[in-house]
Amino acid sequence: MATIFTKIVNGEIPSYKIAEDEKFYALLDINPLKKGHSLVIPKQEVDYIFDLEENLLGDLHKFSQKIAKALDKTIPCKRVAVVVLGLEVSHAHIHLIPMDSENDVRFSNPKMQFTPEEFTAIAKEIKKNL
Amino acid sequence: MATIFTKIVNGEIPSYKIAEDEKFYALLDINPLKKGHSLVIPKQEVDYIFDLEENLLGDLHKFSQKIAKALDKTIPCKRVAVVVLGLEVSHAHIHLIPMDSENDVRFSNPKMQFTPEEFTAIAKEIKKNL
Repeated sequence: MATIFTKIVNGEIPSYKIAEDEKFYALLDINPLKKGHSLVIPKQEVDYIFDLEENLLGDLHKFSQKIAKALDKTIPCKRVAVVVLGLEVSHAHIHLIPMDSENDVRFSNPKMQFTPEEFTAIAKEIKKNL
Repeated sequence: MATIFTKIVNGEIPSYKIAEDEKFYALLDINPLKKGHSLVIPKQEVDYIFDLEENLLGDLHKFSQKIAKALDKTIPCKRVAVVVLGLEVSHAHIHLIPMDSENDVRFSNPKMQFTPEEFTAIAKEIKKNL
């Protein structure tokens, strides 16, 4: 069965898309730890990120760098954190989290709430800065 | 002034080295969240990881993949987490943390204690699996 991320890539489930190319897809996390918290995924359905072919892994991080730089321009923060855990969704994904302190990147923190209009506006701002 | 990681790369400060090539260096974190918690750094002294030239960033993650695969073979864990925070040491570094649950990757957790002999043995085991 397709993962939720594959369904998003295929347009079967909507997402607040930030960027896409032939191999990768970036979107807003809808349970964000911080405003602008984004996910970057390979379109290839791989559970564990380290099972990606090495050049694809390198390219995934280069793609993430573009998103992170746009986040830095869009969201007031000290820097953008990178986190890959991967125990919940069996499709590799990189969290990019604008942060001001290490506590911002604690996954047990309560998630922020935004309306669909707010998510749409955040995605639009980030895209402008790509 | 040289960062602590540059001093380690230059051999001015000792480390439990796992691997090194012309551009990157991997070592055990001496304040580990879990056994085998490792750091991967670019030898180039850059504070913010996203300021690395994009191909160097990609290669850094490809180098990290080799370390993560060795960790997977060496340390019993579900998978190896990737975390880049970067607020404490102003020299970019990737944390690779063998984990069984998301709680293992909480930086406010108490750090594990190992003797120099134990650190040396852990590094040796990981190197065998590279």
